[in-house]
Amino acid sequence: MHVALLGGTGDIGEGLALRLARDTDHGVSIGSRDAEKAQAAAEEYEATLADHGVETTVQGHENADAAAASDVAVCCVPAYHLTDTIDAVGDDLGDAVLVSPAVGMKRDESGMHYNPPGVGSVTRLAANTAPEGTSVAGAFHNLAAGKLAALDADLDWDVPIVASDDTARDTVVTLVEDIEGLRPLVAGSLDNAAEIEGLTPLLINLAQHNDGMHDLGVRFQ
Amino acid sequence: MHVALLGGTGDIGEGLALRLARDTDHGVSIGSRDAEKAQAAAEEYEATLADHGVETTVQGHENADAAAASDVAVCCVPAYHLTDTIDAVGDDLGDAVLVSPAVGMKRDESGMHYNPPGVGSVTRLAANTAPEGTSVAGAFHNLAAGKLAALDADLDWDVPIVASDDTARDTVVTLVEDIEGLRPLVAGSLDNAAEIEGLTPLLINLAQHNDGMHDLGVRFQ
Repeated sequence: MHVALLGGTGDIGEGLALRLARDTDHGVSIGSRDAEKAQAAAEEYEATLADHGVETTVQGHENADAAAASDVAVCCVPAYHLTDTIDAVGDDLGDAVLVSPAVGMKRDESGMHYNPPGVGSVTRLAANTAPEGTSVAGAFHNLAAGKLAALDADLDWDVPIVASDDTARDTVVTLVEDIEGLRPLVAGSLDNAAEIEGLTPLLINLAQHNDGMHDLGVRFQ
Repeated sequence: MHVALLGGTGDIGEGLALRLARDTDHGVSIGSRDAEKAQAAAEEYEATLADHGVETTVQGHENADAAAASDVAVCCVPAYHLTDTIDAVGDDLGDAVLVSPAVGMKRDESGMHYNPPGVGSVTRLAANTAPEGTSVAGAFHNLAAGKLAALDADLDWDVPIVASDDTARDTVVTLVEDIEGLRPLVAGSLDNAAEIEGLTPLLINLAQHNDGMHDLGVRFQ
């Protein structure tokens, strides 16, 4: 498969790019609103991979071009850029599976809180914004970006996945399985996304309040 | 400490009673609206413990009497009985720490969903219902009751804890630490309870959709 990381110049995009390029045979493209920025990030990721003994090509393109050449497009932008990014890509998605890892959060004096959009979840918002008929999945919501991007760190995390259809589900299950240390878990339809997204602020609160805990993910057992 | 399990004749009450009686030196009372029902459950738990080689006394009382004699009162009733139960106990709580493990959920055709009360979380509702000045904590939300009550099952679960004050937090941290296989994690103030409660429907959805997964809890790592 070829994976486009839309808005892939940020932290979650970097982590997914490095892990996919190192651990899998899938092609990886970085997308950005600015093609030059995408190419610069792609070269930076290639250099990091080379430092870890992995000689591979990471492409960099404007988001729509990256999406057009992909089988899977992961929308790696913050929640408040989600709809703009999907609108800009639009029909260039073609038959690609669109994956949403974003979580809406707000901080107050107590800590971090889940702050879903009116449609119930960011994943549902992604599905509502995508062209009709797009296969959509929610995944990668609960990964600590810093640890994901640190290739020396071994992961031992679960990735709950919600999906609009079997194609989206099976595609993302395969993608997650191919990354070392990640276990895909099916969590049902897109209507079950809020409970996955809501876990991310809890991870942040736990890291804040417990000595020695940081860059947390989750295992269900 | 002496621990009262209000409404402790149900599944989460049974699990906490058996584990506390087996693993710790804390006294355990089962509370119920009906003192005879509480005593019958207490005798049943004693018999189960005896089958596992643990000779100990579990008391059974009407909820208010159980609360009055306790240092910690865990309100083990379903969310929709929470306010009635706390109201009935009222000032009998005295200086006891009140602990709320309940989660409001609703099921639809997609699966289970978090359904918090208007005040934001069941834990917050417990605090708002308790007599003024009561130390309140939220804990034990994410434990699979069936596995908790199966004494032959080894646990390896985290217990996120929110609390109104240091007394409530430290008391519940100690209680959780004393149960084998449970690790207490501090998650901040009661205002952070919703993200913990919202994890429970996800556990149920994951158990439904993944072969071989059932009675799920969680580890943060």
